Amino acid sequence: MKRIDGETRIVAILGDPIAQAKSPELFNALFECHATNAVLIPFHVPPLQLGPVLDGLRGIANLAGVVVTVPHKFAAAAYAASLSAPARQTGGVNCLRREADGTWSGAMFDGIGFVNGLVACGQTVRDKSVLLVGSGGAGTAVAHALVDAGVASIDLDDASESSLARLEDALRSRSTATSVRRGVAAAQPIHDLIVNATPCGMRDGDPAPIDLTDASPHAVVADLIMKPEQTPLLKAAKARGLTVHLGRHLLESSVETMAAFLRLVP
Amino acid sequence: MKRIDGETRIVAILGDPIAQAKSPELFNALFECHATNAVLIPFHVPPLQLGPVLDGLRGIANLAGVVVTVPHKFAAAAYAASLSAPARQTGGVNCLRREADGTWSGAMFDGIGFVNGLVACGQTVRDKSVLLVGSGGAGTAVAHALVDAGVASIDLDDASESSLARLEDALRSRSTATSVRRGVAAAQPIHDLIVNATPCGMRDGDPAPIDLTDASPHAVVADLIMKPEQTPLLKAAKARGLTVHLGRHLLESSVETMAAFLRLVP
Repeated sequence: MKRIDGETRIVAILGDPIAQAKSPELFNALFECHATNAVLIPFHVPPLQLGPVLDGLRGIANLAGVVVTVPHKFAAAAYAASLSAPARQTGGVNCLRREADGTWSGAMFDGIGFVNGLVACGQTVRDKSVLLVGSGGAGTAVAHALVDAGVASIDLDDASESSLARLEDALRSRSTATSVRRGVAAAQPIHDLIVNATPCGMRDGDPAPIDLTDASPHAVVADLIMKPEQTPLLKAAKARGLTVHLGRHLLESSVETMAAFLRLVP
Repeated sequence: MKRIDGETRIVAILGDPIAQAKSPELFNALFECHATNAVLIPFHVPPLQLGPVLDGLRGIANLAGVVVTVPHKFAAAAYAASLSAPARQTGGVNCLRREADGTWSGAMFDGIGFVNGLVACGQTVRDKSVLLVGSGGAGTAVAHALVDAGVASIDLDDASESSLARLEDALRSRSTATSVRRGVAAAQPIHDLIVNATPCGMRDGDPAPIDLTDASPHAVVADLIMKPEQTPLLKAAKARGLTVHLGRHLLESSVETMAAFLRLVP
């Protein structure tokens, strides 16, 4: 890794917990690759401290911005003076750029990161039929990005009816060609892409969040969970011989986009 | 340099400007040497932002503390819940440790760093006669540390009469064996150690701040200025064949002390 000196620009990733974060390795490798004098560091920020920390970081002239992770993505959006379209659609941010006047510009790259990750792994997205389970922040970001990418249909499910209805309404209100159905909890033969956007699978003993019994043998099964890498859903998909897509591809595919948004790489 | 990951602990150096700071290289080399998973990064903080930045940094659980440099050493002391003896004596801090409850413990290592730097370079301090020009923050820290180290006498001078009187009073009130005189502006044959603690020499065209005409050929001439390394005073001393002592030794000698205070090295 390159040396840090007095002219190094700083990016911090804010989360709670933070020890598991992979962003330091990924961003710092990118900065090294571009010979950019910048470094990404982890900041462990409990929820009650998010406001004071973000207010304080505004005063640091060589701070390019912050990457925002769990559980701060929604709360952090309230501190942004402006929001990108995906940030407005999801109500959350995963990146805040510090402007010269000390204000924050918010953006959300989780959705486009997921789509770009699929494409980078050789999958096509346009005109595909999708089953998306989970309508929280991650599910909402992914749903909007899939609509942007021109999927034919999205079937949605979530244990929370209100969250599910909100996402369905938001997608329908975009009046795109994408067909949206809700309350589809299990894989059907029509689904080309099956996505888990719930936290189910992060803890030992979690069941697979989607029943793959009727999945097409050509389906791609994706999980947004990064740790463990092999979730119960992905293990079940593998056991059926289906193609699996790992959670870390989302982050890997959005690192360069985020660094460009922060004006640290071209 | 070692890789930064989600478990890396953070130290920031706060200054304005900050591009010239040597602390990142020195601290990060020390952390590498001790296999400590920590990194020091530069934060460029304008004076008006110091309060909000320090308040914000209190909320970052993996922040070990901050190193404080020009122009924040005095202002930062006001944010400390407790102060070390040298910090109280000088009224300033160059290090704030973040305690688990989010409060700051302040310390000032400039004085002991200067004395330790002299010793590391083979000089003795005890029982020596000193001429110290400059009674601001740096001069005050060095004066108290020289008294702690048992110098025989300190002759003081400064363009600011009030600052000079304050330092003289403070040194006398410690009722040590050290003799203190003020208003001695030029080197005398009695002086074993001649120290510039004024900013004179930082800018191109600055004159030497101390007249060395009558200096002893055995005198050691020290400058606290780090940049340029070869100040007008040190050039004049060299021209006279005197031993010179560079500003950077102060920082080099206090890095390990500060890292230990921040509980990052044994």
